[in-house]
Amino acid sequence: MSLESLRPASPFPDRIAEIITIGDELLSGETVDTNSSYLDGLLEQWGWIVARHATVPDEVDPIARAMRDAADRASLVVCSGGLGPTEDDRTFEALAQALGCALVLDDDVLERIRARFASFGRTMTPNNERQARLPANGQPLVNEAGTAPGFQALLGRAKIYLLPGVPREVRWLAEHALRPQLDRGGPVIHRRTLKTIGFGESRLEHVIREVRDAHVGSVEFGYRAQASETHIKLSVRPHSHNETIDPDEARSRLDRAEADLRGVLGDAVFGTDLAEISAVLGSLLDERKLTVATAESCTGGLIGAMLTEVPGSSAYYLGGCVTYSNDAKVALLGVSPRALEELGAVCEVVARQMAEGVRVRLGSDWAIATTGVAGPTGGSPEKPVGTVHVAFAGPDGTSAKVLALPGDRASIRTSTARIALDQLRQLILVSSGTSER
Amino acid sequence: MSLESLRPASPFPDRIAEIITIGDELLSGETVDTNSSYLDGLLEQWGWIVARHATVPDEVDPIARAMRDAADRASLVVCSGGLGPTEDDRTFEALAQALGCALVLDDDVLERIRARFASFGRTMTPNNERQARLPANGQPLVNEAGTAPGFQALLGRAKIYLLPGVPREVRWLAEHALRPQLDRGGPVIHRRTLKTIGFGESRLEHVIREVRDAHVGSVEFGYRAQASETHIKLSVRPHSHNETIDPDEARSRLDRAEADLRGVLGDAVFGTDLAEISAVLGSLLDERKLTVATAESCTGGLIGAMLTEVPGSSAYYLGGCVTYSNDAKVALLGVSPRALEELGAVCEVVARQMAEGVRVRLGSDWAIATTGVAGPTGGSPEKPVGTVHVAFAGPDGTSAKVLALPGDRASIRTSTARIALDQLRQLILVSSGTSER
Repeated sequence: MSLESLRPASPFPDRIAEIITIGDELLSGETVDTNSSYLDGLLEQWGWIVARHATVPDEVDPIARAMRDAADRASLVVCSGGLGPTEDDRTFEALAQALGCALVLDDDVLERIRARFASFGRTMTPNNERQARLPANGQPLVNEAGTAPGFQALLGRAKIYLLPGVPREVRWLAEHALRPQLDRGGPVIHRRTLKTIGFGESRLEHVIREVRDAHVGSVEFGYRAQASETHIKLSVRPHSHNETIDPDEARSRLDRAEADLRGVLGDAVFGTDLAEISAVLGSLLDERKLTVATAESCTGGLIGAMLTEVPGSSAYYLGGCVTYSNDAKVALLGVSPRALEELGAVCEVVARQMAEGVRVRLGSDWAIATTGVAGPTGGSPEKPVGTVHVAFAGPDGTSAKVLALPGDRASIRTSTARIALDQLRQLILVSSGTSER
Repeated sequence: MSLESLRPASPFPDRIAEIITIGDELLSGETVDTNSSYLDGLLEQWGWIVARHATVPDEVDPIARAMRDAADRASLVVCSGGLGPTEDDRTFEALAQALGCALVLDDDVLERIRARFASFGRTMTPNNERQARLPANGQPLVNEAGTAPGFQALLGRAKIYLLPGVPREVRWLAEHALRPQLDRGGPVIHRRTLKTIGFGESRLEHVIREVRDAHVGSVEFGYRAQASETHIKLSVRPHSHNETIDPDEARSRLDRAEADLRGVLGDAVFGTDLAEISAVLGSLLDERKLTVATAESCTGGLIGAMLTEVPGSSAYYLGGCVTYSNDAKVALLGVSPRALEELGAVCEVVARQMAEGVRVRLGSDWAIATTGVAGPTGGSPEKPVGTVHVAFAGPDGTSAKVLALPGDRASIRTSTARIALDQLRQLILVSSGTSER
């Protein structure tokens, strides 16, 4: 469904927001704008519909024009960037031009900047005074994450907010200054994402077709796939501009759709929304007081790196070996030189020996091993690029699986790591008899 | 310097481009727009100045309006997104509206889509026919990376191009359809980036101040820092709209600045422009026929993962151990239990023993070891979060270094890995007597 019905012809629909990002570096290929997407997500949660982004250079006229145009169309305009201390930073000047007012030195803001410098044992430069010269019509917003204040004003009938460009400062001001003023109590569009790994998009669509059909008119279904992670995106949307969906009603529709999907997919759903496989597996290991070790060849340490992204992972991750060369497989893991010679490093036998070897050496409950051809070279007709063997050694023995992964080297390695972590999660659920399937 | 002088009041400056990205998912927090930044970089290399981005939803009127507005200001408009087969995809319809022409079925394009489906053994759906209904005024662009064709037309006095939204397809069409038509033979702004690791931005600025001053008026200097990697950004820009800088002249100015910077910084510069430390170190190891092994605690496998991102890394990376627990440090690397007990895991002695242990076990020329407090918990007054010991065992003995790194867990780990790889690069240069210092 398009959002067209939510963005009517009325010039001042009261839920429409626009975002303007400001900076030469955003127009030269140097910097990808991540602030807009972050603000989109927050504003949507708070009940706004973001109808447009614009990115303009650090120049007064284009910034002022973009502000006026946005304020004509939307009732909220959030700007980011151009509040720094150098001559290049022109956003306060541009807003003053758009408002038709002067820039005036704000003594409180100046004092705050001076105090911030003093707290770092540094002296304020004359340049930093620029950051205290603000449009006369409007109010500064305290920014404890940086030097530049934020700012708010009324431009025509629209509220306009100026935030710095540094993502950390955007996040601080969004939480502390924007949320209290802009959170309308709930989203216009209610969303939930169910996450799976190793399920192709078309296979997933096929498997859940009946569930989707059963929820037509209540919940919309979408899909998204990247490096073996496939997401089912559920949304509950109003059908017209004036309709608001009761949050309890939306939650209950999403709950029903989620329950039906889990009925079909079982353990294949590893989590929802912001869940990451490394943290989900970590919680499971932690809960069950289980430990894991890794033996990585083609992933080269990536599985260990993913497991240890999670704070507290030392409770369940003991460590492992990266055995990129055949000699390392023999020396560190006790893989049989004969198997390596006769079958090659990329085979089920070697994967199993790697998993069993690291499990014994580190005394872990479980062990994961990977060996494969990540490319771009090294493939053969029998073992083309993307052929990966993963093995899992556990209390009840060892199992293995061969994967045929598409994509480039980075994608094959990421897919292998994700699939290995997710398979271990499912094996643990099955082995202890608590599988949902 | 601001680009203001390059974007004069003239309504049709012949080097000004704008980018429009189209899609509801770009306005909801689901997807960060990376296509705009990619296109910025290419267009700049080809001699264009990108003056503005806009992002609009999948709706005919806003798309058509954004196209007309951009074509009024710029002489080139590049659009991305909304060419898919579903009802949500409205970009062709919007361009037809902006051009004031009809959509007509293009038989050649339809045949190409049908053939593409046949080549995958699939049948075209009626939806896919939509992708062959194109504005009457303009020409399709063959897209071998996907189903939807690109498109080009003249809107007012501006050239307008439509590309799909999938990044891989954007890249294919940019190279095959845009470059031949839009490359004006060289950039307006000539850039070069020198990369260092472990140099703070303010320290770097201090060290190179005299070099910067010596090039005022010839080359502009900028800085950028992220997770211990600090870049010096050099640029040569024209001073007015009509000036073009001769590419040889620009190169020679950048060469002189680079040579002066290397004179001051020596080996601290690990590469320029797109260079990555893992590939730079890899080439050095490969050239010298040296091998390396890793022993990682707080980085948890990240250094191995970075080394093996590089195709062909098996020539010099043998593997290593991820020893997250103390027991693993003892069992896999032979670290002394007494040192662990008396000094703790985060100390120079343990780092040295880890490096030496893995070097002996794998028989490598060099070995890297890391042990530290990545946080957010685990810090103490003596060893706060961010304390990391790195050690390097090599043919001439073992050296070690303690780091005090700022930032969060992810940033501390990435910094550690980059600094360790870069330190090894510098040690190898020094050890073989080919240092530039």
